Amino acid sequence: MQITPTSLQHIAALIDAPFIGNANHIITGFNEIHRVSLGDVVFVDHPKYYDKALQSAATTIIINKEVECPSGKALIIHPEPFTAFNTLTRHFSPRQYSSQAISNTAKIGKNTIIMPGCFIGNEVTIGDNCVLHPNVVVYDHCQIGNNVTIHANTSIGSDAFYFKKRASSFEPLYTCGNVVIHDDVVIGSNCSIDKGVSSQTSIGKWSILDNHVHVGHDVEIGERCLFAAQVGIAGACKIGNNVTIWGQVGISSGITIEDNATLLAQSGLGENVKNGQTYFGSPAGPAKEKMRELFAAKQLPDLIKKLY
Amino acid sequence: MQITPTSLQHIAALIDAPFIGNANHIITGFNEIHRVSLGDVVFVDHPKYYDKALQSAATTIIINKEVECPSGKALIIHPEPFTAFNTLTRHFSPRQYSSQAISNTAKIGKNTIIMPGCFIGNEVTIGDNCVLHPNVVVYDHCQIGNNVTIHANTSIGSDAFYFKKRASSFEPLYTCGNVVIHDDVVIGSNCSIDKGVSSQTSIGKWSILDNHVHVGHDVEIGERCLFAAQVGIAGACKIGNNVTIWGQVGISSGITIEDNATLLAQSGLGENVKNGQTYFGSPAGPAKEKMRELFAAKQLPDLIKKLY
Amino acid sequence: MQITPTSLQHIAALIDAPFIGNANHIITGFNEIHRVSLGDVVFVDHPKYYDKALQSAATTIIINKEVECPSGKALIIHPEPFTAFNTLTRHFSPRQYSSQAISNTAKIGKNTIIMPGCFIGNEVTIGDNCVLHPNVVVYDHCQIGNNVTIHANTSIGSDAFYFKKRASSFEPLYTCGNVVIHDDVVIGSNCSIDKGVSSQTSIGKWSILDNHVHVGHDVEIGERCLFAAQVGIAGACKIGNNVTIWGQVGISSGITIEDNATLLAQSGLGENVKNGQTYFGSPAGPAKEKMRELFAAKQLPDLIKKLY
Repeated sequence: MQITPTSLQHIAALIDAPFIGNANHIITGFNEIHRVSLGDVVFVDHPKYYDKALQSAATTIIINKEVECPSGKALIIHPEPFTAFNTLTRHFSPRQYSSQAISNTAKIGKNTIIMPGCFIGNEVTIGDNCVLHPNVVVYDHCQIGNNVTIHANTSIGSDAFYFKKRASSFEPLYTCGNVVIHDDVVIGSNCSIDKGVSSQTSIGKWSILDNHVHVGHDVEIGERCLFAAQVGIAGACKIGNNVTIWGQVGISSGITIEDNATLLAQSGLGENVKNGQTYFGSPAGPAKEKMRELFAAKQLPDLIKKLY
Repeated sequence: MQITPTSLQHIAALIDAPFIGNANHIITGFNEIHRVSLGDVVFVDHPKYYDKALQSAATTIIINKEVECPSGKALIIHPEPFTAFNTLTRHFSPRQYSSQAISNTAKIGKNTIIMPGCFIGNEVTIGDNCVLHPNVVVYDHCQIGNNVTIHANTSIGSDAFYFKKRASSFEPLYTCGNVVIHDDVVIGSNCSIDKGVSSQTSIGKWSILDNHVHVGHDVEIGERCLFAAQVGIAGACKIGNNVTIWGQVGISSGITIEDNATLLAQSGLGENVKNGQTYFGSPAGPAKEKMRELFAAKQLPDLIKKLY
Repeated sequence: MQITPTSLQHIAALIDAPFIGNANHIITGFNEIHRVSLGDVVFVDHPKYYDKALQSAATTIIINKEVECPSGKALIIHPEPFTAFNTLTRHFSPRQYSSQAISNTAKIGKNTIIMPGCFIGNEVTIGDNCVLHPNVVVYDHCQIGNNVTIHANTSIGSDAFYFKKRASSFEPLYTCGNVVIHDDVVIGSNCSIDKGVSSQTSIGKWSILDNHVHVGHDVEIGERCLFAAQVGIAGACKIGNNVTIWGQVGISSGITIEDNATLLAQSGLGENVKNGQTYFGSPAGPAKEKMRELFAAKQLPDLIKKLY
């Protein structure tokens, strides 16, 4: 999430926290660790991840321990960095609940058809020649390119499923990112595409999603991908170009799938996939290995009979 | 389903059926066998379940055979108890189809935001500080607590998937229960939570459901549960507190999952799970056993090669 | 798709293509190869399928090579038959985007209840005594019989997931078919039923679909079928009568399932199933074999321990 540039002093005051660094150190945005760039605030609350956060591109780190501040960066010391980060992102991007079906601040391109029952949130942009079939919901700040088709009852921009376990409850990481759908994308009916928590969930040009597809927060999908019905992709996955995913495949969070890969139907993927590989199974592995295992499994009952 | 107390005589007359018991025996509600309490009518149509029904907490039993009546209870004799029960529940809780997007009889709390395109049925209650994102549907009689968030295109209160096979068709068990969502629950987009057939489907405080989750009729979900996307829970399951269910898990009807259990992604659960256990696989078993089997399966092709 | 009868000469002119056959040869419709009948135009663009197309019931074939024309038939020669076919079907059945929630040209029967937020497209017909719960979407030209119940947020008639890979994109086969839902069908909430590409997707009398079911283009479902939640059926499957499919089953495209078959939960079906058979597993096989394999797999770790 980008903001109008502001100072370290100002940010720290908003959460009533001491800071280390130049009071006028500049802050231009907020992001979680996988997406940070120069000017961003990031948070870290576990020693295991201190180094990663301190050495990331982020120039301001909210941290729960006073550590040495990297040169040219700033630290904000807070006992609950997760909560502090939420307080700040809520402050700079508060929820606004449009009471209009199509917000006054939405920008909709030429020849774009928004069918009855759709909801288009605040500051949404939609390009030219799109069709949003009935009852599609597009949450605030999402961006849709040209020539995009979205089928009925699909939800674009729901909140990230990203929660921190607390003593008696779950604290959500406040969702302030968006969804960016590039030109010529087709999305089926009853799909859900979550926003990035502070960055983007994106779907590349010419990618096609069938019905009931779930795309988690911060997922990046390349160009010319084809996802069949009921595929579920957990948060923060990175999927290349020309990736084909057949029906009911599930992918764990944070997985990388390189270009031209294929996942066969009902696979459950928990590891990265290299360029051009085909995976199968639950848990999924290279399809050739899995097919060999399946063939062997068929022989097993007779083998056991023979051996005992 | 509770009703204004009425007499055995009255109920029996409505379905034109003979009864055994005091004509003034009191009836205060209707429930199916797993949920009955004192004052309830239950039905039974198979000798295998006669004893269970007769000895249940229900005090009036619609039955298709004249049997000995337990002391202090009443029987109604009907050749088709399932149909008779449906006739009665329809009589006392007829479908009313609100033609308003937000029914006049719905009660909505303070600071609760109902976004455009939502439907709120008759006699629905929604607490304070809730957000119902666009196009959420809440069927008649459902109850939603405080601080509940429900994302776009989610359906709360659709009918139970509970049908009796007839010679040439299916007869539904008439749905007259509801859904009760407790405080601080978060439900993702495009989810479906079915009503209880005559009782409640419930989701406990602080439980979180991701997108595309299906919850069947009469499911009871405890507190602080976390269900990832595309989980499907069949009817009448009982899920404890702090249960974590990863993506695309399916659970058969009537299963009990105790507190603190975890089901790994894509598991297909057909047996009960004890406190704190982790299950995996389809069909699912204790995760350690399943991992051991998976490890062995990888070795099997070479083993077979060696043996033959 | 049926059209007002027209001539070969007229059709060929619309796509600026040479033809072989009588200029007044009659054309009465368009269909893809699995659904053609007398009077239909079909297309074929791969030598592997030339014979099938030429010998099908279709009487006009758009083809990318000049071949011998079967007696009494006609050929239209076009370098891109897929695109030419799309041009023609778009011409005869152009998209019309109703700006009304319930189109003026929709016909709705007696005692049928259309709840708030529903969209009913152009030339839709809905029979008597139906209930469409809130926010159901019925696309143009779909047909719904009598006594049909459709639950909230379900989409009837979204486009086929049928794309041809091009150098840098995907070209959709233009969807101009419809969905036909016969009498007494019940469909759960958040389901998606795609249209046939040029013919029908159909659901037979008394069939029941639970929530989150996906039915692909041109699927034919018989009578008295029961599909549990989150079942996904890919395009062009043919499912008989009295077929029971449990939760989260996935079925590949073009599969035939005969009457009285059962697919157990989470199965992934890639082969045809004969009358009365029960299948299980992913990939699915006869349930008895699969259960035997599963039983053997449980013994495998100990077997390996013993052997090594």
